[in-house]
Amino acid sequence: MQKSERNIFLKMKTLREAREIWEGRTGLLRTGVETIDVSLGLGRITSGPVIAMRSVPHYHGAAMDGYAVRASDTYGAGDTTPICLRIGESAHAVDTGDPIPEGSDSVIMIENVENISGSHIEIRSAAFPWQHVRKVGEDIVSGELLVSQQHVLRPADIGSLLAAGVLSISVFSRPEVFIQPTGSEIIPADRAFEAKPGEIVEFNGAILAGMVEECGGAAVRRGIVPDRYESIKAALREGVDSSADIVIINAGSSAGSEDYTASVIGELGQVLVHGVAMMPGKPVILGIVKDKPVIGIPGYPVSAIMAFEQFVRPLIHTLRAERAPAFPRVSATLGRKLPSKLGLEEFVRVILGRVEDRLVAMPLRRGAGIITSLTRADGILQIPQELEGADEGAEVEVRLLRPKDQLDYTLIMIGSHDNTIDLLANELKGRDSRVHLSSSNVGSLGGLLALRRKQAHFAGSHLLNTQNGEYNYSYVERYLKGIAVRLVQLAMREQGLVLRKGNPKRISGISDLLRPDVTFVNRQGGSGTRVLFDYCLQQLGLSPEGINGYDQEEFTHMSVAVSVSSGRADAGMAIYSSARALDLDFIPIGRERYDLVIAESAWSDFKIRMALDVIASDSFRRKAASMGGYDVSSSGLVMGIWDGKTWTERDGN
Amino acid sequence: MQKSERNIFLKMKTLREAREIWEGRTGLLRTGVETIDVSLGLGRITSGPVIAMRSVPHYHGAAMDGYAVRASDTYGAGDTTPICLRIGESAHAVDTGDPIPEGSDSVIMIENVENISGSHIEIRSAAFPWQHVRKVGEDIVSGELLVSQQHVLRPADIGSLLAAGVLSISVFSRPEVFIQPTGSEIIPADRAFEAKPGEIVEFNGAILAGMVEECGGAAVRRGIVPDRYESIKAALREGVDSSADIVIINAGSSAGSEDYTASVIGELGQVLVHGVAMMPGKPVILGIVKDKPVIGIPGYPVSAIMAFEQFVRPLIHTLRAERAPAFPRVSATLGRKLPSKLGLEEFVRVILGRVEDRLVAMPLRRGAGIITSLTRADGILQIPQELEGADEGAEVEVRLLRPKDQLDYTLIMIGSHDNTIDLLANELKGRDSRVHLSSSNVGSLGGLLALRRKQAHFAGSHLLNTQNGEYNYSYVERYLKGIAVRLVQLAMREQGLVLRKGNPKRISGISDLLRPDVTFVNRQGGSGTRVLFDYCLQQLGLSPEGINGYDQEEFTHMSVAVSVSSGRADAGMAIYSSARALDLDFIPIGRERYDLVIAESAWSDFKIRMALDVIASDSFRRKAASMGGYDVSSSGLVMGIWDGKTWTERDGN
Repeated sequence: MQKSERNIFLKMKTLREAREIWEGRTGLLRTGVETIDVSLGLGRITSGPVIAMRSVPHYHGAAMDGYAVRASDTYGAGDTTPICLRIGESAHAVDTGDPIPEGSDSVIMIENVENISGSHIEIRSAAFPWQHVRKVGEDIVSGELLVSQQHVLRPADIGSLLAAGVLSISVFSRPEVFIQPTGSEIIPADRAFEAKPGEIVEFNGAILAGMVEECGGAAVRRGIVPDRYESIKAALREGVDSSADIVIINAGSSAGSEDYTASVIGELGQVLVHGVAMMPGKPVILGIVKDKPVIGIPGYPVSAIMAFEQFVRPLIHTLRAERAPAFPRVSATLGRKLPSKLGLEEFVRVILGRVEDRLVAMPLRRGAGIITSLTRADGILQIPQELEGADEGAEVEVRLLRPKDQLDYTLIMIGSHDNTIDLLANELKGRDSRVHLSSSNVGSLGGLLALRRKQAHFAGSHLLNTQNGEYNYSYVERYLKGIAVRLVQLAMREQGLVLRKGNPKRISGISDLLRPDVTFVNRQGGSGTRVLFDYCLQQLGLSPEGINGYDQEEFTHMSVAVSVSSGRADAGMAIYSSARALDLDFIPIGRERYDLVIAESAWSDFKIRMALDVIASDSFRRKAASMGGYDVSSSGLVMGIWDGKTWTERDGN
Repeated sequence: MQKSERNIFLKMKTLREAREIWEGRTGLLRTGVETIDVSLGLGRITSGPVIAMRSVPHYHGAAMDGYAVRASDTYGAGDTTPICLRIGESAHAVDTGDPIPEGSDSVIMIENVENISGSHIEIRSAAFPWQHVRKVGEDIVSGELLVSQQHVLRPADIGSLLAAGVLSISVFSRPEVFIQPTGSEIIPADRAFEAKPGEIVEFNGAILAGMVEECGGAAVRRGIVPDRYESIKAALREGVDSSADIVIINAGSSAGSEDYTASVIGELGQVLVHGVAMMPGKPVILGIVKDKPVIGIPGYPVSAIMAFEQFVRPLIHTLRAERAPAFPRVSATLGRKLPSKLGLEEFVRVILGRVEDRLVAMPLRRGAGIITSLTRADGILQIPQELEGADEGAEVEVRLLRPKDQLDYTLIMIGSHDNTIDLLANELKGRDSRVHLSSSNVGSLGGLLALRRKQAHFAGSHLLNTQNGEYNYSYVERYLKGIAVRLVQLAMREQGLVLRKGNPKRISGISDLLRPDVTFVNRQGGSGTRVLFDYCLQQLGLSPEGINGYDQEEFTHMSVAVSVSSGRADAGMAIYSSARALDLDFIPIGRERYDLVIAESAWSDFKIRMALDVIASDSFRRKAASMGGYDVSSSGLVMGIWDGKTWTERDGN
């Protein structure tokens, strides 16, 4: 749905310019005002001041249980000079909340009344006027300002309005946003399983509608319109003529041959901006048709979200005469060098966690089409257009995608991917919904390096020493000098060749990978699986050169399995559970040990404690075993304690 | 509706004890699970892990516009050795998103293709396999974990679920809360204007329902039930037998003669706690009936809110197996000594603002019946039961009731009350919805003292020097030594005697206040109005002793007017606009100058700039004039610049 930028956006604007142009043209637009029942007002925004219609309390009432009296009748009462008052005449029994009878002006607490007979009470201290009386208007005075205009109504506000006799109020209507998905290749989400190659499931509409709702707007979702000029024009016209405050066309916003959005907006109205120097989100169109804001939102989901946040979100707030609330931000240390194009405002998704009192931001994949880069992210790092990126270790500002107090509950795992890590993440959430495992799959060696740089709480590693057949120890010795860690076995797991269902190429082992008709898919250098594969080749005396696809690298077991399943390759090396998940054939090559390498500094952290508890639990073991290819009999066993120089414990002894 | 604590709660628990007992008995309760359309899932919480049903992309697609080729066909291509490929055979035109034709494994960008004829393309550099191809599963791999259990769904999550073929999901149902208002004196809010003395408008139900909604629950609001044992019992039974997860009885939770809630819970089930050492909120009841949590919530609105926050809010989250999110907190400097009872956890409402880089918390009124103490508050300060209050200047933790970034937009005004201050607050909101004026009415002198202690951005003052008839100057000289301020005239205003409508007591001036049949209501010492009144008495040679009610003090013009309007007093001294607001008679006594006394340190603050802009605006003047009794012809004029030692400017010169 996204077209390449064959025709460069000649008049591309910087993000700041585009926002200025947009705010200049839309800053005074307002949505309508409606009168609603106060009891339905939660979260709504007042369009004018709200004045109390009555006083609260509306009568002088007893603030205590006791007797209402006239204070002047009690003057002179004292320990030795008690005064006697006649019930029903100069003293009246009242409970809290009861009105003060005519002629009384104060209340004596029941605790201070003595010798109550059927007809009289005795008191030994004088009352002062209006003591223990809730006076009229003590809380609210008729005519006073209850809430000003532009006030977001909270539950207590609603209570005070009702108390003050205000039953209905004027609030801004929810700004209506017309969301028009376009594209001949787009099919509705409920037909996802019928999708043919080239067809794309429509899900941006649901994302945009959710974002509209989060801003307090009301989304009007429309059916898909094909990439035909006249159809898009008709849809735009319908949106502009509807009650909507904002019209979104998604997508066709680029400059490709079938990208009609800009031309259509230009024909019916005016294109203010086409192309903004931001990434993702560059091919955005800002226009006005019949005084109504129209936005061409790019097709890639991350681009769509970024464009929405920059141009639609502020506008939904403007329509109710308010500023969009600032996004919560934190300062963090960048975990990896991040190059970025000069002149382009870039938004990079990161995972975030507190490692040794430092908040570390680790960038995720940048592709605008990768929606999971956003769902997995803890934050978004913005690289200003003036900068050519940021260096490792730089202090950066990150906008939070999770509540700030969750940062202390985020466990950062970097290293080799294993399917049981997802299982661990899920079980942790079940134990404490605040605990969140953020993981970055960069291979076993990458994990050890991240530990060295204090960027993770733990790594996942299954690195074979090809000299002695041992796992992990020699790599820890080599890469973690001066860094204390403990190795905990997560599982023993089956590695092998993943093959297409039914094994059409009749592959029976690694040597078949050298056949010219066989294509292989490899794992990246530094991954434990790559080390194992290279070791196997070496043992068999085979040379990598003869293997088609040896240079084709994937970063996870699952992507290797997908490469095979999609026909891109005939074979790949991966763990059994990934073959099973995609219903592929599998030839076992060997069993390997997968350890968690846990920073000593995190060892007593409650999150690590909880993770170790989970791993040792029956429930975890049972679920891991059911995924296939895992031997969990020693899961949770400490395999080694490394103090940065030597092993004080090894091999579970 | 609230009864006094005649029978002390014998078994009163500390807040911590009560919460432990409550969590111990309810911690494992869970609400139901329901299956919903993913597109309706915004904000809902998953009850189990969600797994991808298909890979995204589901086909190998072009990531660029160009030509799909087999990479091996391009090997050897170079600047001097171009390779020619036949369109339709070894090269296929593709747009971004198009599937890669069978046999192709990479895409050459259109920019790198030369000499396109009808039948051939020429390339001068080799392609590598899978370049510019979005591979199957690049974003999502079928079978992988999309979101774990206990995940709160955000718009992007919904997109990724739909993309991955997940159309419906299991989420926790919204916990249902049955809200039963009780009380023979309670009437529905829509009958507020018929309320007789002793009757109280029901608005707690709306507050509690709003709070339930904010926690993600669903409120079931019930009609009012009178204070009869059997009626309350029937209502409780109905709640317990309904589908609700939690039953709230409001109120009857105290220990008075008509407080049946505890007995009813005890008869049908078990009372776990009756009375918690917290204020407001002490008379809370925690019980279990047929395994269902039942809470007796106190009747005073602030008590009700505090009890809800401590016992209902966490439970609504528990029911969905999650922890309640932490309240946002800030550290602030306490502006006034705050005594508190040992052994009682106290919650004090405060206004909060940044004055000279220090966040200052100023306590508001503490009454549990004062709902406006909560609606006007910026935060809540919790005084732990171990402490006997907190000293002025102490660093305290305050829970925020407004977004944290709004603190920099909060203008703190302390001092004399004037109705145009409310007008100013409202106009500021209209200019910038983030700007919030928090005010505390402590009289003119109190305002100057607050400026001396750096607790406010500005004060409101109308203090008459009885020696020379001048306003404010001599007081600034005396109380603000070393503190630089500027005086800006807000308005000249009419002060006078507020009298009952029709003037039944035939009061014609101040001397009538000495008549034995006339009751007066006074303003507090230190208020400008009190100074003026005492000055008038002195001028007339009258003695305060002869005035009934001279000792009865109110803190605002409006409360003086209310005292007269409710019959508590026959006359009081106040500004004309307050008489007019309540439709009372008024005898002018004199015109006075009301100035804003603005801290020099805040003078260039954008909020003060904006406030001065507002005051100088036609719109403000017009609205102020229409309130009656204001002369706004010199509003906004700088009346004096005080550098802490001398006046560098005075009297508008």
